[in-house]
Amino acid sequence: MFIDDTIAAIATAPGEGGIGIVRISGEKSLEVAQSIFKSKSGKMIKDYNTRTLIYGKIVDGEKVIDEVLVAYMKGPNSYTAEDVIEINCHGGFISVKKILELILSKGVRIADAGEFTKRAFLNGRIDLSQAEAIIDVIKSKTDMAHEVAQNQLEGSLAKKIKDLRMNVTEVLAHLEVSIDFAEEDVEEITYQTLEEKSLELRNEIKKLYDTAESGKILRDGLKTVIVGKPNVGKSSLLNSILGENRAIVTDIAGTTRDVIEEFVNIKGIPLKIVDTAGIRETEDVVEKIGVEKSRESFSTADLVIMVLDASRKLSEEDMEILESIKNKKTIVLLNKVDLEAQIELEKIKEFVSSDDIIEISALKNQGIEELQDKIESMVYQGSVKNSSNLMITNSRHKDALFKAYESINDAISAIEQRMPYDFIEVDFKNIWDYLGYINGDTVREDLLDTIFANFCIGK
Amino acid sequence: MFIDDTIAAIATAPGEGGIGIVRISGEKSLEVAQSIFKSKSGKMIKDYNTRTLIYGKIVDGEKVIDEVLVAYMKGPNSYTAEDVIEINCHGGFISVKKILELILSKGVRIADAGEFTKRAFLNGRIDLSQAEAIIDVIKSKTDMAHEVAQNQLEGSLAKKIKDLRMNVTEVLAHLEVSIDFAEEDVEEITYQTLEEKSLELRNEIKKLYDTAESGKILRDGLKTVIVGKPNVGKSSLLNSILGENRAIVTDIAGTTRDVIEEFVNIKGIPLKIVDTAGIRETEDVVEKIGVEKSRESFSTADLVIMVLDASRKLSEEDMEILESIKNKKTIVLLNKVDLEAQIELEKIKEFVSSDDIIEISALKNQGIEELQDKIESMVYQGSVKNSSNLMITNSRHKDALFKAYESINDAISAIEQRMPYDFIEVDFKNIWDYLGYINGDTVREDLLDTIFANFCIGK
Repeated sequence: MFIDDTIAAIATAPGEGGIGIVRISGEKSLEVAQSIFKSKSGKMIKDYNTRTLIYGKIVDGEKVIDEVLVAYMKGPNSYTAEDVIEINCHGGFISVKKILELILSKGVRIADAGEFTKRAFLNGRIDLSQAEAIIDVIKSKTDMAHEVAQNQLEGSLAKKIKDLRMNVTEVLAHLEVSIDFAEEDVEEITYQTLEEKSLELRNEIKKLYDTAESGKILRDGLKTVIVGKPNVGKSSLLNSILGENRAIVTDIAGTTRDVIEEFVNIKGIPLKIVDTAGIRETEDVVEKIGVEKSRESFSTADLVIMVLDASRKLSEEDMEILESIKNKKTIVLLNKVDLEAQIELEKIKEFVSSDDIIEISALKNQGIEELQDKIESMVYQGSVKNSSNLMITNSRHKDALFKAYESINDAISAIEQRMPYDFIEVDFKNIWDYLGYINGDTVREDLLDTIFANFCIGK
Repeated sequence: MFIDDTIAAIATAPGEGGIGIVRISGEKSLEVAQSIFKSKSGKMIKDYNTRTLIYGKIVDGEKVIDEVLVAYMKGPNSYTAEDVIEINCHGGFISVKKILELILSKGVRIADAGEFTKRAFLNGRIDLSQAEAIIDVIKSKTDMAHEVAQNQLEGSLAKKIKDLRMNVTEVLAHLEVSIDFAEEDVEEITYQTLEEKSLELRNEIKKLYDTAESGKILRDGLKTVIVGKPNVGKSSLLNSILGENRAIVTDIAGTTRDVIEEFVNIKGIPLKIVDTAGIRETEDVVEKIGVEKSRESFSTADLVIMVLDASRKLSEEDMEILESIKNKKTIVLLNKVDLEAQIELEKIKEFVSSDDIIEISALKNQGIEELQDKIESMVYQGSVKNSSNLMITNSRHKDALFKAYESINDAISAIEQRMPYDFIEVDFKNIWDYLGYINGDTVREDLLDTIFANFCIGK
């Protein structure tokens, strides 16, 4: 792929902040930047060492747009491995917007989402799993998710995939020798060796694959719906307990209120609170949006937390909700256990396992630790908490690993059946291809576009 | 004021973006940065030229926190005029947070809002009006507001105040000579000269003061409430017409949904749409929040825009709203003028001047230009549209100017009454002080704290 145009975008998050950055990448970066920049010293950008922050002004003719620091990073020693200019200006909306507009008026194209990183990949500076890790670093909601992504950015997954493919290549080489020189006196690979190597490979792939479920939750959060009638203590629970751990309010670029997501950090697990208009308001979700609508939000949730007032009897509505969540992962919190219990525990148990019913007192701060433990164990259920930080967090990688896993199984059964080497070779070639999806070695160009479209603009 | 501690903060806006910046300022900046940074080259930060972007990693012991670019700007050639370190890391929430936490663990204090800029002021790099302009640049909602703020940042107001104070100083010098050497044979200032100079000064102060009303709106926006019953075309009007010019959705740092403000740019004037829960929803504001609540939001609005369906008769509710807004700046839009008119125009005119009633057709895109002109003329009513871009946008400056104006009036009446020079001197000293509030020369320290508290963190 030949990259011949110069692109630009705002590289910092939109909003009020001290500093904003506009980034340009491509052949014309320096020329375009020089045409709109006057250094305080009167010198040209090229008169400075590369990577120097040069103080001056962005000007449109005589008109001063902003006071800035400009840095020129000559390729390949830059983010994209192309010539890059970064302009540090005042934060807020207008400075970056005006500077970007000015740059675009000089024949520079606005960058697609993720295009800077895509170029870093296409120019060979990083592999695809590292490119994808960059967006995960940026979007990470908890320290743990950040660490896993940072690790992947450092190349842990890239190296792992490279190692696995090296093993596959080795097998393929042996197979080819055995096929090509079957008549001659070369040392053929034996079915037994093949089987050993295949089982080992399957084991490695499986181990990696098994990290994916927890990994996905670490990355994307556990989509959680919290329901409860007014006065059951839902909002005080949220404000006092979850509120302390409240990590991030994400305002998706663009943006209308409807898509704001809120994350709460529970033991490193990001709970993505699905705001069914009921979280901040003290009004009743159920009454307000109706059972119908609640059901709708349940259907896409990873976890439903239902808060009940233990000092009152179950209402008909409660029963309806219990009915509608009986197939979901659910935690029922019985609040106000400090008061006399009135609630019909047996009825609840018809819908929810008693392991998943937790008595709490938001008022007296009881049961909260237990709730957090419960959530943690639900997430890590079936997979070990990984200490090496090598985890599959990306569903694309997961899919590719699954296909590689299917192919290794095919290979193994072909080996067991003592099929001809040619047959087995096909399976190994598939494994090689599928693993190559992950580091981008064998990925198709149209898929690349899809992958980078998920990035934010300016990265 | 002696500044001896080192401060740090996140300098970019919170949110998902390609790049985040953490800034450190103060004596220990370099030492602290070096203790958590490993350059790719293995060299120390001090081995590089200052202002060089150095590639490397932020580390906590052995643990890699993020890949970064670090730059060291040695005071006084830095934003604060102190030693400054800027760390460019990956955007998003976690990288900046972790790096900041690491820095704070090294005995650095987190910066108060605006503290970097406050230091730039205290260290004499900029005057107070320039410091305040920085936050205005960042918070500007339209190009025009940005331009005015940028101008102030460049020192236009600083220079104007300096000039005015120079004139005051001159008068004071003459007065003092005349007082001290009254018995001797020095050339005394005459009452006539004094009067001439005072009138000239008053004229200058008045001219500046008169820009303040428009200036404030440019900066803070015109607080606008839009009301209308369902199906009058309010939402289609908003979406199609105002929507095109929709500039910014501000998510105030902090933040709950309730404080999101929406700005619409009309001819460079930011309309701050007061969201009484009625803007995005298609439901009726009036029915939903009730006439009582509407009245509440009217009371603080700079402008009320009422949308009526011209093809229907006025309802009782319409009349109630008209009644409640009759003392506000109001524009009534008669929508659907393409249909047969049923509305009782005469009744509306009892509440609103016919100049302020505009016939529109949101459907046929008629009357929109007229609406925009109307808003523009309302804002600039009584004040000339300023071409020099020297405008008072800050209410603190406005207040100081008003006090200076009162004092010059006192001086003039003292002069007219041929009062002793001592009396007149007092007034001129006051003028000198009040003007000094604006550039910070005579501002009290506790007031400084209040001023900078309005800045964003990290600036």
